[in-house]
Amino acid sequence: SVNPDLASERQTASFSVEKLTAWLDGGVENTRTRRAVVEAIESDPVFSRENQYFQSQNERYEAAVRKAVHLQKKMHEMGWTEDGPEYNYIYRAVAGDVAFLLHRIFMRSISMLGSDKQIAKWIPLASQYQLIGSYAQTELGHGTYLQGLETTAVFDITTQEFILNTPKISAMKWWPGDMGRSATHTVAFAQLYVQGKCYGVHPFIVQIRSLQDHSLCPGIIAGDIGPKMNFEHVDNGFLMLQNVRVPRENMLSKFCEVQPDGSYVRWGSQKINYFTMTSVRISLLADEVILPTMKACTIAIRYSVVRRQSKLKPGAQEAKILDYQTQQEKLLPQLAAAYAFYFVKDYLQELFDNGYREIQRKNFDMLPELHAFSSGFKAVITQYCTSAVEICLRACGGHGYSLLSGLPSLYTKILASCIYEGENTILLLQTARFLIKCFMAASAGQPVPPSVTYLAAVKPRKCPAKNKLDFLSPDIYTDAYQHMAARLVSSTAAKLQDLLQSGVKKHDAWNQCTVQLAQAAKAHCHYIAVKNFAETVEKLETQAGIQKIMKHLCDLFALHGIFSNSGVFLHDGYISGAQMDMVTASYLDLLPIIRKDAVPLVDAFDFTDKSLNSALGSYDGQVYQRLYEWAQKSPTNKQMSPAYEKYLKPLLHSKL
Amino acid sequence: SVNPDLASERQTASFSVEKLTAWLDGGVENTRTRRAVVEAIESDPVFSRENQYFQSQNERYEAAVRKAVHLQKKMHEMGWTEDGPEYNYIYRAVAGDVAFLLHRIFMRSISMLGSDKQIAKWIPLASQYQLIGSYAQTELGHGTYLQGLETTAVFDITTQEFILNTPKISAMKWWPGDMGRSATHTVAFAQLYVQGKCYGVHPFIVQIRSLQDHSLCPGIIAGDIGPKMNFEHVDNGFLMLQNVRVPRENMLSKFCEVQPDGSYVRWGSQKINYFTMTSVRISLLADEVILPTMKACTIAIRYSVVRRQSKLKPGAQEAKILDYQTQQEKLLPQLAAAYAFYFVKDYLQELFDNGYREIQRKNFDMLPELHAFSSGFKAVITQYCTSAVEICLRACGGHGYSLLSGLPSLYTKILASCIYEGENTILLLQTARFLIKCFMAASAGQPVPPSVTYLAAVKPRKCPAKNKLDFLSPDIYTDAYQHMAARLVSSTAAKLQDLLQSGVKKHDAWNQCTVQLAQAAKAHCHYIAVKNFAETVEKLETQAGIQKIMKHLCDLFALHGIFSNSGVFLHDGYISGAQMDMVTASYLDLLPIIRKDAVPLVDAFDFTDKSLNSALGSYDGQVYQRLYEWAQKSPTNKQMSPAYEKYLKPLLHSKL
Repeated sequence: SVNPDLASERQTASFSVEKLTAWLDGGVENTRTRRAVVEAIESDPVFSRENQYFQSQNERYEAAVRKAVHLQKKMHEMGWTEDGPEYNYIYRAVAGDVAFLLHRIFMRSISMLGSDKQIAKWIPLASQYQLIGSYAQTELGHGTYLQGLETTAVFDITTQEFILNTPKISAMKWWPGDMGRSATHTVAFAQLYVQGKCYGVHPFIVQIRSLQDHSLCPGIIAGDIGPKMNFEHVDNGFLMLQNVRVPRENMLSKFCEVQPDGSYVRWGSQKINYFTMTSVRISLLADEVILPTMKACTIAIRYSVVRRQSKLKPGAQEAKILDYQTQQEKLLPQLAAAYAFYFVKDYLQELFDNGYREIQRKNFDMLPELHAFSSGFKAVITQYCTSAVEICLRACGGHGYSLLSGLPSLYTKILASCIYEGENTILLLQTARFLIKCFMAASAGQPVPPSVTYLAAVKPRKCPAKNKLDFLSPDIYTDAYQHMAARLVSSTAAKLQDLLQSGVKKHDAWNQCTVQLAQAAKAHCHYIAVKNFAETVEKLETQAGIQKIMKHLCDLFALHGIFSNSGVFLHDGYISGAQMDMVTASYLDLLPIIRKDAVPLVDAFDFTDKSLNSALGSYDGQVYQRLYEWAQKSPTNKQMSPAYEKYLKPLLHSKL
Repeated sequence: SVNPDLASERQTASFSVEKLTAWLDGGVENTRTRRAVVEAIESDPVFSRENQYFQSQNERYEAAVRKAVHLQKKMHEMGWTEDGPEYNYIYRAVAGDVAFLLHRIFMRSISMLGSDKQIAKWIPLASQYQLIGSYAQTELGHGTYLQGLETTAVFDITTQEFILNTPKISAMKWWPGDMGRSATHTVAFAQLYVQGKCYGVHPFIVQIRSLQDHSLCPGIIAGDIGPKMNFEHVDNGFLMLQNVRVPRENMLSKFCEVQPDGSYVRWGSQKINYFTMTSVRISLLADEVILPTMKACTIAIRYSVVRRQSKLKPGAQEAKILDYQTQQEKLLPQLAAAYAFYFVKDYLQELFDNGYREIQRKNFDMLPELHAFSSGFKAVITQYCTSAVEICLRACGGHGYSLLSGLPSLYTKILASCIYEGENTILLLQTARFLIKCFMAASAGQPVPPSVTYLAAVKPRKCPAKNKLDFLSPDIYTDAYQHMAARLVSSTAAKLQDLLQSGVKKHDAWNQCTVQLAQAAKAHCHYIAVKNFAETVEKLETQAGIQKIMKHLCDLFALHGIFSNSGVFLHDGYISGAQMDMVTASYLDLLPIIRKDAVPLVDAFDFTDKSLNSALGSYDGQVYQRLYEWAQKSPTNKQMSPAYEKYLKPLLHSKL
C-alpha cells in the first residue's frame, strides 16, 4: 500500500504523468520499448542488485562479470541487437553494474583506428568474448597530457616486431577498467620509436594473459589497483611491460603504419579522433550523469513528502519537510536542472548528428564547435549534477547517509565523472580557447558559428525588467545570460590582450587568465542551457498542461542561476540591486508552485523501484519499513562479532 | 629519500616551519606533548591503520573495539589521565578509528543529568568497561525535532517501574553509535507518562544485552543499521522496546523525578542543556572538521608539487600542477580557510570558557549568544570544510579517487558532520533567529552582546578602496563583510516585518524568509571569521616571518570570499563593479605569492605519514612508488577471482 502522504501528492498533479513520460522518451513507442527492456532485465534474477550494498569489492566484481556474460545470452534470447530500438535502454535497465565496458572501448578503438584486416581478425573474437580486451592509455604519471606518455614501443626490424616497455614506475598503465583481473588483451598506447626516431603515441594490441589458464604472459606484470570510492565492480588495473614483443601487424594502422623496411607512413586525418571523444562525452552525460541526477531527485523528493518533522504552525500536525522553504530551495532547483540538462543532451545529440552528416561529406568545419560544446557541457553538467546529488543526499538528513538510501553510491559514482573522460578544468579551458578565438574573429568581422555570434552582438546595457513578473519572461532572462556570458568572454579577452601588450609571454598570460577563462566558459554553457530550455518549452505549445509546468521549471532553472551567481549579473549594472530583489522574489515565489507538482515531476522519470534500489525512494513511500527490513539483511547482523569474545567478554561485569 | 620536487619546495620557505607549528600548538611545550602522544600511539601495532582501506565493515568494527579496549590499557601504562595534558591529543593520534565514543556520551549524560546516587552507581562501572553504554535519542522518524519522539515510558505505580515501549516502527531508535552490536546499556529518551499525563521527553537507563552472554534482553530487538558512507567502524544501531521494565531509579533525575506516589517534581534549570550541545559542537569542529580539512590540504598540496603534467611553456619540462593558476585557485583558498577556521575554533573556545565562568556564577546571560555562535559556526564550518575536502579530492584527479589517497574517507566522514549534531539548515535558522532578535533590540536602542552591536551601527555606504592594493587592508575588507552581513540581516528583518504587516501569519512569514535568513546567518559567521583572522594576525606582531605569511592567508581568505560571493557585496553598490575588478586582481595576485610557501604551510600542520594514511600525501612525496606498493596489498590481488572459472573460462578461445 502506498503511504498516504505520498499518495495524496499524486492526486493533485496539474498534468498527465504518463504524457510527460512519453514526451520525455520521445514518444509512446519508446516508452513501451524501454519498459519491456527494463521488465525483461529486472525479472531475471542474475541482474538483481538486491544485496549490492552489502557486497565486498571481490563480490561486486564477480557479480559484474556474471552479468556481462549473461547479458550477451539475454540479448540473443530476446532478439535485441546492437542497432535495434531496445539497445538504448539496456544499460539503463542493468543500472551500470556490469563488467566489460572497457572491452567495448577496446572494440571501438580497433574499429576506428584499425585496418580492415585488423578489424576482420579481432572484432569477431572480441564480440563473442573469446578474448577480453581493455584500453590502456592512462599511466600512473600521465592522465590528461597524452603526449607525455612514457611507455615505449621500439620497432625491431630484424624480427619485424615492436618491443614494448615500461621504462619507469610512472609509466605503468594505471586505471584501465577490465584490466586488473579480466582482460586477456589490451590496446596499449606507447611512444613509437623506429630506428631511433620517436613518432609519438600509437596504439598496439598486446596480449597480457594466457587464453589457456589466464596466467600473466611473459614480461607482463598486472593486477588490480585496489579500492576506490565506487566502481567496486570494475577491476581497474595496472600493467607493466618488460620487453614484450608484438608482431608488426599489432599496431593499429588505419591512419599510419610502420612498413617492413622501417619506413613510417601516415595517411588520412587525425582530426577525426576528436569525434570519438565527443561521442563518448555525449553518451556519458546521459547515462552516467543526468540519469543518476534524476534518480537522486526522485529519491529525495519522494522522501521529503513522507518525512514529517517539526511544525510549520503551532498546534498543527508535523509538516512534510518539502513544505519548508529551505527544503524546496535545496531540491527543486536540482529537479529543474535535471530537466534542463536532459534537454541539453538532446541539443548536443542534434549538434552531433549534424556534425556527423557533414563529416561523412568530408566537411570537418563543425569539429571545433562540437569539441568545444561537448567539452564545456561535460564539465558544466558533471559539476552541476555532482553537486545536485550531494544536495539531495544531504537533504535526506541522516537516512540519506545510509547506503540503503541509494544516494551515497549515486554520489560516489557521479563524482568520478568530473575526473574521467577529461578533467573538468582542462575541458573548460578548451571551451574557453574556442570562445576567445570566436570572439576575436567576430570582432574582426569574420564569420563564426551561429551558436557564438552573440559574442559580437551589441546588447542593451541595462535589463529592461520593471517588476518581478517581468523576470518570468524567457526573453528577459535569456538576454541577461547572454549579456553576462558575452561580457565575461570579452573582458577576459581584453585582459589577455593587455597582458600580451605589456610584454607578458603568451603562455604566462594565458595561465594568468585561466580562472576567468574557466568562468567565461561556464557562463557560455549556462546561457546555452537556459536558451535551449526556453526554446524546448516554446516548441511544446500543443501540450498545454505539460508546457505550463515545464515553463515553471525553466523559469526556476534560469532564476536560480541568477540568484546564485548574482555577482556576474550585477557587476556592470546590467541587472540593478532593485532588479535582483525582483529576481529573488520571483524565484522564491516559484518554489511553492513547483512544489505542488514535485512528486508527479519525478514520477514522470519512470524509474522502477529496482532501478532506484533505495529504501527512501520507492514508489510506495514505505520508507521506514523498508529501511528496517533492509538493515536486517546486513552481514553485520548475521553473526555475533568475534570482538565480543576477544575483547568485551573479559571486561563486562556479569554480577551487575 | 624525499622526492626532489618536494624537497625543493622546503628550501625556500619564507618562515620557520617549526616556529609556526609551535605557535599553532599554543607553545613548544604542547608540540612536544603532542608528538610524544602520537609517537606512543603510532608505534603500537594495535593502533595501526595500515590495512584500513581493505577492510570490511565487520573487520573495521572489530578493530575499533580492540583499539578502544587497548587504549584504556595504554593510557594506564603511559600515565595519561583524562585531565592531563596528553588527553587532548589522543583522539588525533588514534585518528578517529576507535569504538565507544557513544559510550562516552552515555557517561556524559549520566554525569550531567543523573543524581549523585546515579552517578555513583553507573560511572565507575562504565569507566572500566564493565558495561558498554550507548545514547538512544534519535528515532527512525525523528532526528531534529526532539519533542516529537514517540518512544513511551509509562510509570507503573504498583511495581514502581517504568514500562518502555516502541509503539510503532517510526519510533524505533535508529542511528545510535555503539548500539548495534556492543552496548549492554543505553540512555533511552522517551515520552514520560504518569497516570495518563504526558510530561515530555526524559532519559532512562535501560539494559539491552546480557552481561553474561551478550544476548538481547527480553523485550529488546536490536541490531546494526547496516552500511553507511563511512563510519564502518561504528555499530550504529536500531532498538525496539517491547514492554521493557526499568526501576524508578533508572530515570535520570538531577533535574526532575517521579516520586513513589507518582507525583512529578522538577527543579533546577533546563537551559543548561544548551551548554552540553555547545561544548560538543565546538570540540567536534576541531577534531572532525578542521583537522581533516588540514589533512586534505596537506595531501593535495604535496601531491600537486610532485605531479607534473603538461607544459606551461613550449619546450620546457612538464610543470608542477601547483604552478597552474587554476590549481592554485582550487587549493590555496582551502588552505587559507583551514587556517581561518583553526583560529575561529580558538575564538569559540574563548567565548565558551567565558560563558562557562559566568554560568558557574549562575549568570546565564551569555547562553543565547553562545548557542547562536556555536550553531552558526558549526553549520558554516562543516559546510565549507566538506566542500574544501571535496575540492582537494578532485584536484588530485584520478588518484584522488582511489581510497589509497586517503581523501575519499576524509570526504565521506566529514560529510556526515553537516548532518549530525544538528542539521546545518536548522542550525543556521537558530543563529538567524538570534540575529534578528538582536537587530530588533539594537534598532530599538536596547543593549545587545558586543559581537552583534555592528548590526545597528551605521556604516559608510560605499567602500573607500581606490586601487587593488587597498583591498589588502584588513579594515577595508572587514568593513565590507560587516556592511554586507548587517545589510542581509536588516533587509531580511524588513521583509519579515512587511509580511507580518500585510497580514501573513507569523509562522508562514518566517518560513517565507528562511532562505534569506540562512544566508544572513552565514554572512554573519563569515564576517566574524574574517575579523577574527585579521585580529589574530595583528596580535602576531612579534613573529614577523609568520605574521607576514599569515597576513597573506588572511587576505586570501577574505578576498576569495568576496570574489566568490560577489553578488552580496555588489548588490547595494557598497562595492562597485570597478572595485570588484580590483578585488579580483588582488585575489589572483595573492595566489602565486602563497603558492611559494604552500608546502611549508601544510608541513607546519605536522601530520605524520601514519596519521595521513595517504599514498599521495606522505612527507617524502614518493607518490607513485607508494600507490603501487599499496595496491599490491589489495585483497583483489590475493587470489584469482572465482569469476574466471565460472564465467570466463568457458568463453575464452584458447586456440588463438
